[in-house]
Amino acid sequence: MNHGPAERRVAFLGPEGTFTEEALLANPPGDGPHPFPYPTIKDVLHAVRDGEATVGVVPIENSLEGSVAVTLDLLAFDFGDLAIVREVTHPIRHQLIARGPLELARVTKVISHPHAYGQCRTFLDERLPGVEHEAANSTAEAVRTVSRVDRPWAAIGTRLAADMYECAVIADDIEDSVENRTRFVFMAREPAAQDLDATYKTSIVCGIDQDEPGSLLLILSEFAYRHLNLTKVESRPSKVALGHYIFFIDFEGRVADGPVAQTLKCLACKLPWLKVLGSYPT
Amino acid sequence: MNHGPAERRVAFLGPEGTFTEEALLANPPGDGPHPFPYPTIKDVLHAVRDGEATVGVVPIENSLEGSVAVTLDLLAFDFGDLAIVREVTHPIRHQLIARGPLELARVTKVISHPHAYGQCRTFLDERLPGVEHEAANSTAEAVRTVSRVDRPWAAIGTRLAADMYECAVIADDIEDSVENRTRFVFMAREPAAQDLDATYKTSIVCGIDQDEPGSLLLILSEFAYRHLNLTKVESRPSKVALGHYIFFIDFEGRVADGPVAQTLKCLACKLPWLKVLGSYPT
Repeated sequence: MNHGPAERRVAFLGPEGTFTEEALLANPPGDGPHPFPYPTIKDVLHAVRDGEATVGVVPIENSLEGSVAVTLDLLAFDFGDLAIVREVTHPIRHQLIARGPLELARVTKVISHPHAYGQCRTFLDERLPGVEHEAANSTAEAVRTVSRVDRPWAAIGTRLAADMYECAVIADDIEDSVENRTRFVFMAREPAAQDLDATYKTSIVCGIDQDEPGSLLLILSEFAYRHLNLTKVESRPSKVALGHYIFFIDFEGRVADGPVAQTLKCLACKLPWLKVLGSYPT
Repeated sequence: MNHGPAERRVAFLGPEGTFTEEALLANPPGDGPHPFPYPTIKDVLHAVRDGEATVGVVPIENSLEGSVAVTLDLLAFDFGDLAIVREVTHPIRHQLIARGPLELARVTKVISHPHAYGQCRTFLDERLPGVEHEAANSTAEAVRTVSRVDRPWAAIGTRLAADMYECAVIADDIEDSVENRTRFVFMAREPAAQDLDATYKTSIVCGIDQDEPGSLLLILSEFAYRHLNLTKVESRPSKVALGHYIFFIDFEGRVADGPVAQTLKCLACKLPWLKVLGSYPT
């Protein structure tokens, strides 16, 4: 793979062949990007900040597993200088993958990341009962392993990894829930352009002075007053002191809109700490 | 291990030797329980519902990884008949474990669950740079593996697992963050007794008719009006229709308190759907 020059590099949470790369390839940035894997979410964000990459793609929320708290905390505390410039929601479809054509009845071992295994339990219980399970560090690692060994083993992984390692998909879409999808955010050093034709969402994080009854109400009333629709509210421990919280809030609209600008201005007056994580097309 | 009679069995998310069992043993229910491992969170809850166990212990939130969405959704949608009767917060301390005494410089492989590995990255990068990493399905499985092989391998796991498999802890508390802790809930068929001397928390989940601006405000105003302090607010997709949300709310107080009872009564009038997940001592 030619990773290309840094000025067109798109950093993503690796390794290659996992869902983050699948989401990126299904939704490529416009300028002919060169995907480049980094081992952790923090490494992806550092690559963007340091100019190694123009954009970085990281998971922020899975419909079954919930928010990726590591990403939320990094954006709130460590990478407040970066901006979310886009979000994409990508369906999580697990494939059963072998080195070549292989009947299910002949499979003697299933290799996968523990999360992927947990998300395919119905299929595994019904179609591969009692078959040994071996853990891997990623779905891509699992596929690579089966591609290299001439044994009747199968991996749970992405269609992308199956192609990448020239393997066969021996059972399609084996996940328990068709609702399984992950929201990824594209991070950059500069905020997204505010295109008036597109639908936007804005993400903020804010802290409150004291955890007193009504503090969240104070925040939300600013949105309600201006008829702004919230799409997510989540409290997280603030890390500053036990019992203190910060709030992640997503809402419809763009920072260039009058009501959004007013809301943010009023909140900035009321609250000790507020960051706009990004205002981006959806 | 003698798992004892079902009427005193405490179900927990297994396998044996993981953090859920550690949390349970550090906070045993009063009646001399017999811990019994189940393979999934759903299996633990089924065991409680079916009377195989009197209490079930499952993780609900980790300070670094966020909410355990699987647990939230099961409590909201599938096991609304069970009640949270207690919560405990247990520190997540990772140990580097070998079959016997072993110098760090001699370790050739580290085996662990991918999450545990990700939570010890600083130690691993500094003290064991370049050492091969092999995935396991659980920290307990990793410890069992190193206990059985006469090789210079180390596992990342709990102190409980080290004891259980008669292994040596060769490096203590190797986690990156001392803030790493998990909140576990104890589930039962009957609600907790309302002891007037203890401090209580109450957890509810509720749905709204339509996702219109101000719907969450409507809910929170009932708490603010009665000076009830919220300790958690989290929106989740409702699973009923795209774009619809449900809200998980934790607050201080017990259902037997007048203001709490009034709040719940008013919310039940306003909302199409509300469940009290439990009112329990903290």
